[in-house]
Amino acid sequence: MADTLNLAADPVELTAALVDVPSVSGDEAELADLVERSLRAQTALEVVRLGNCVLARTNLGRPKRVVLAGHLDTVPVNDNLPSRLDGDLLHGLGTCDMKGGDAVMLSLAATIEDPVHDLTFVFYDCEEVEAVRNGLNRIERELPEWLKADLAIVCEPSNAIIEAGCQGTMRIEVRAKGVRAHTARGWMGVNAIHAIGDALRRLETYEPRHVDIDGCVYREGLQAVKVEGGVAGNVVPDAAVLTVNHRFAPDRSPEQAEQHLREVFAGYEVVVTDFSAGALPGLHTEAAQELVRAAGGTPVAKLGWTDVARFAALGVPAVNFGPGDPLLAHTQQEHVPVNDVRRCREVLWRFLSRG
Amino acid sequence: MADTLNLAADPVELTAALVDVPSVSGDEAELADLVERSLRAQTALEVVRLGNCVLARTNLGRPKRVVLAGHLDTVPVNDNLPSRLDGDLLHGLGTCDMKGGDAVMLSLAATIEDPVHDLTFVFYDCEEVEAVRNGLNRIERELPEWLKADLAIVCEPSNAIIEAGCQGTMRIEVRAKGVRAHTARGWMGVNAIHAIGDALRRLETYEPRHVDIDGCVYREGLQAVKVEGGVAGNVVPDAAVLTVNHRFAPDRSPEQAEQHLREVFAGYEVVVTDFSAGALPGLHTEAAQELVRAAGGTPVAKLGWTDVARFAALGVPAVNFGPGDPLLAHTQQEHVPVNDVRRCREVLWRFLSRG
Repeated sequence: MADTLNLAADPVELTAALVDVPSVSGDEAELADLVERSLRAQTALEVVRLGNCVLARTNLGRPKRVVLAGHLDTVPVNDNLPSRLDGDLLHGLGTCDMKGGDAVMLSLAATIEDPVHDLTFVFYDCEEVEAVRNGLNRIERELPEWLKADLAIVCEPSNAIIEAGCQGTMRIEVRAKGVRAHTARGWMGVNAIHAIGDALRRLETYEPRHVDIDGCVYREGLQAVKVEGGVAGNVVPDAAVLTVNHRFAPDRSPEQAEQHLREVFAGYEVVVTDFSAGALPGLHTEAAQELVRAAGGTPVAKLGWTDVARFAALGVPAVNFGPGDPLLAHTQQEHVPVNDVRRCREVLWRFLSRG
Repeated sequence: MADTLNLAADPVELTAALVDVPSVSGDEAELADLVERSLRAQTALEVVRLGNCVLARTNLGRPKRVVLAGHLDTVPVNDNLPSRLDGDLLHGLGTCDMKGGDAVMLSLAATIEDPVHDLTFVFYDCEEVEAVRNGLNRIERELPEWLKADLAIVCEPSNAIIEAGCQGTMRIEVRAKGVRAHTARGWMGVNAIHAIGDALRRLETYEPRHVDIDGCVYREGLQAVKVEGGVAGNVVPDAAVLTVNHRFAPDRSPEQAEQHLREVFAGYEVVVTDFSAGALPGLHTEAAQELVRAAGGTPVAKLGWTDVARFAALGVPAVNFGPGDPLLAHTQQEHVPVNDVRRCREVLWRFLSRG
């Protein structure tokens, strides 16, 4: 691995270099080290390290500040490393979600010499796992002033167009209980795994809502993401746990979403393990309008949950704008069009630089 | 610890003495030493030691031979040692499974002077763990003539009545495949955990057979014993595995049981991970009939799998006959009624002794 990245390089090359340093959630130290070293070596920014988060900013006394945010981690490797350029597409884990966006941020950090607004760059860890581990929590707790801004741009994949708002997400455990017995006399027990069958049936027949807000359509979802149960190979199991992930439109609060899930899984013990509120689309502020003009086109609804909701909760208007198709995130075939990477870098450079 | 056990003592005292020498699977050496020394000191039997197995036999040239078999090991200690006599019940680890049976065997070895049939006593190790470690395997491999007989009596707990044959057991994995996707766009994927729902529905509605063989009713079973699936909290999972344990009556071979399971779970990938054949009751032979008469009452079907199936596979008719309730085996509350121990010793003495 190079001692530092060349931040002035083509952002596509930079994306490939970031992808080729594996950084599955919880294991981002090597990549965070590299990003930190590169920013310190090649920019005049104030740089701070916090765990596996790397923060950098200008302090020019501009009237407004824009924060650009990107997570450094990826979902688990799925036989899709290292990166591979094939024509106009860069393939590999994290190309789309979201090292293309990280590369755009690093390129801007190294090349904008006279920004219109003060700039804060936030690279953080553990976005792809339980919300409680998300690096933004620690920043909010220990360095809250680093998240203050007039606009936040979260460079998650959005096909290089502005996506507004985001859906909420909630994880619950649906728990079944039974009574242990030897499987040679199974009728003496109650099988908790069998009891999960009905919950799976409800998932199969569930009809998710399609919710229209300000012309943006949010499409909800309800998916089992884990199932676990069993004592020994000859024992009727007395416990089984099904973990379900619900994605809900921003017209519902987390409390309303929880109530809905308790109705869907009535009869089971339901425990909420993790949730994040959604964010309503919020494009009315001046800085957001400037960005919309720089990007051109019409903003659309964001379906996935992203950290725009965290910024929205802090009172910072926030949008998604990044290279790559979010539908490819977390798939083995994940890739990013090189033109998306270059376009995002150009749009943001035009928006942020006096030129 | 005494240098030798008093084999001529009340078999209940002998049971307590055996229980008070812990012998969890893999750790039977001390107890095997004690049994070997006691047999050599107090009987005229030919005694052979093989690992932690102790073998003893008469060589009187009788026309028939009966083998009595008992394992020396127990499941792990569960705060249930030493033994404790409370009224008519002897409590403690191994009282039921199966040092009560071992004590009956040792008592017979020391007190039958003129047996009707030649006798072989087999005390063996590692019955409570993976089949591959079972001491009977080593005996079958290295001293196969020691397992030859006209009837085998496995002194596992059977409430002091004859339990004939045993059911087979088979474990399979029922595997479902899907396609990964981000849960924010679940409709792009195929959820493998949801796909397990139909297999659970088949388990819920499964009607196990009750099979009557020679007047013994075998009650089959089909139970999920493990379920596993999930990639990450925000990923539609592409794989889920349900492990199912089938207990089948001895009218079916393992091949027939597998065929049945493939029909039950048609549409799924089914992989057999582990099986043991059952054993037919085999009560038609002369020696078995003599034992049935000595015991009185009506033999019943053995539902759990025991080593009678190993003898059956060697062509030796085999039954379970031992003190204690098999439902208590492997429980912390394990105990044996002292009357069961004495009754088993008396029935077998009547069956085996001319005296």
